[in-house]
Amino acid sequence: MLKVDPTQIATKDLHQFILGAVGPRPIAFASTMSADGVPNLAPYSFFNAFSSNPPILIFSSNRRVENNTTKDTLRNVQETGEVVINAVTYAMARQMALCSIEYDANINEFEKAGFTPLPSERVRPFRVAESPVHMECVVENILPLGEKGGAGNLIICRMLLMHISEGVLTPSGRIDPHKIDLIGRLGRFYYARASGEAVFEVVQKVDEYGVGFDALPPSVRHSPVLTGNELARIAALTRLPSREEALADPAVAEAIQQHQGVAHLHQLARVALQQNDVEYAAKLLIASAEEAL
Amino acid sequence: MLKVDPTQIATKDLHQFILGAVGPRPIAFASTMSADGVPNLAPYSFFNAFSSNPPILIFSSNRRVENNTTKDTLRNVQETGEVVINAVTYAMARQMALCSIEYDANINEFEKAGFTPLPSERVRPFRVAESPVHMECVVENILPLGEKGGAGNLIICRMLLMHISEGVLTPSGRIDPHKIDLIGRLGRFYYARASGEAVFEVVQKVDEYGVGFDALPPSVRHSPVLTGNELARIAALTRLPSREEALADPAVAEAIQQHQGVAHLHQLARVALQQNDVEYAAKLLIASAEEAL
Repeated sequence: MLKVDPTQIATKDLHQFILGAVGPRPIAFASTMSADGVPNLAPYSFFNAFSSNPPILIFSSNRRVENNTTKDTLRNVQETGEVVINAVTYAMARQMALCSIEYDANINEFEKAGFTPLPSERVRPFRVAESPVHMECVVENILPLGEKGGAGNLIICRMLLMHISEGVLTPSGRIDPHKIDLIGRLGRFYYARASGEAVFEVVQKVDEYGVGFDALPPSVRHSPVLTGNELARIAALTRLPSREEALADPAVAEAIQQHQGVAHLHQLARVALQQNDVEYAAKLLIASAEEAL
Repeated sequence: MLKVDPTQIATKDLHQFILGAVGPRPIAFASTMSADGVPNLAPYSFFNAFSSNPPILIFSSNRRVENNTTKDTLRNVQETGEVVINAVTYAMARQMALCSIEYDANINEFEKAGFTPLPSERVRPFRVAESPVHMECVVENILPLGEKGGAGNLIICRMLLMHISEGVLTPSGRIDPHKIDLIGRLGRFYYARASGEAVFEVVQKVDEYGVGFDALPPSVRHSPVLTGNELARIAALTRLPSREEALADPAVAEAIQQHQGVAHLHQLARVALQQNDVEYAAKLLIASAEEAL
């Protein structure tokens, strides 16, 4: 593997490796206002939620790598202690990107980027009407992480009020990833759209004690056919079938009697997994283990 | 819009709204070790990078919403001050999910989830061999955000050494999003895969001062045809063509002379944008503006 020692590499190159490795990053579309009332809008992808009680969101407005200067958003939150964090959807991507241009401090990015300002209820900065989620926040603390170019400034925000468009909710009132259609930031000029084909489900209850990979017979665990993702579905079962239970299944018994080898049985298990019949896949694999001896 | 006041809603419901609205979230696959040497591996999606100089990564190990208890990872970093943060790819998704099961503290999640421990160089916890990026870190600070269930505990990590698989690099040595194939966390049981069709590019230089939406003629800005993303590509131009320049283009002049209306001209502009001919699209739109009067 390539070894990157942060003390031995230019900050701009380290920065790019971090941007490429830590992703997809959610985007805080931060609406602030200067003390004298000029609105500002800028996207930040060093951002996430960190707590739900209290509800804490944190983003970082970094010192620029090239010239160690700071940004309007940082000055505004230092002056006013208020910010509205708006979610960013695919439909907003290019307009949002216009807000990353470093216009002068007296320029209103709502006008430049064609977004509609909407008054907030608890803070002065505007919400972005085109965004489906607005989070009105007070800034609890600003934590500088360093003094050089590339240093972050943690802006620790407590959410006072959240607005969610009904259009992104499921009938039962939860946020639907396909309807909200969020985008995340990757390295360089890349973004990822978190809807449609890109979305997948992994259901894993934290209190269902899967037997684990260490409970799988060695010939199954080191399957020449099945991937780690496939084997993990077997390992997630809270109990494996015994060999007797497996062979009591007529379809399993028949597959074994065909003597087509272990790889063939693993192929059959793959098909069963594709059909979400995890129990049958487990029986095939347990039955295959003796064949492998 | 639905209004959610954090002081007026159950924490578990607020938690779900935050998880659905702030995403896709990168995943820290955190490898730690207890003081007496038991390895632990757990995924955390309240995570991001926040600074490149110094290189700071932060994740939160939250107090459980249901019963206000804390997790093994938190105790381990409190005891030892060390963690390896591993990137999570699509191929690792279901194995990773096994590590979210709340096994007893003496259980080794590497064995349960079938991951291969790899010795680190600067810290004691193992790296995850199946992951393409390992970040060896010391914990600089642990910041509790509250005392109730759902409260975060910020684990502020400084990266000592980064390992990157050569298999995820472009020929020029940058991380390729399609090769690294990262996944991000959404709400409920949803994840997003950040490769393939989901990846798109938005190139926007911060020092190229786009004319902005406010420079577009009203009939263009309020186009009945073009989307915000499409108009943003015109607004990103550093200069708009004049009407004379637009009509000097024979194809534009011909389109105008056909008198098929403003919407038709905007449709032609859309086609030009799809072919990445932003200059021609701009000429069509500028020429269309007078037609609209």
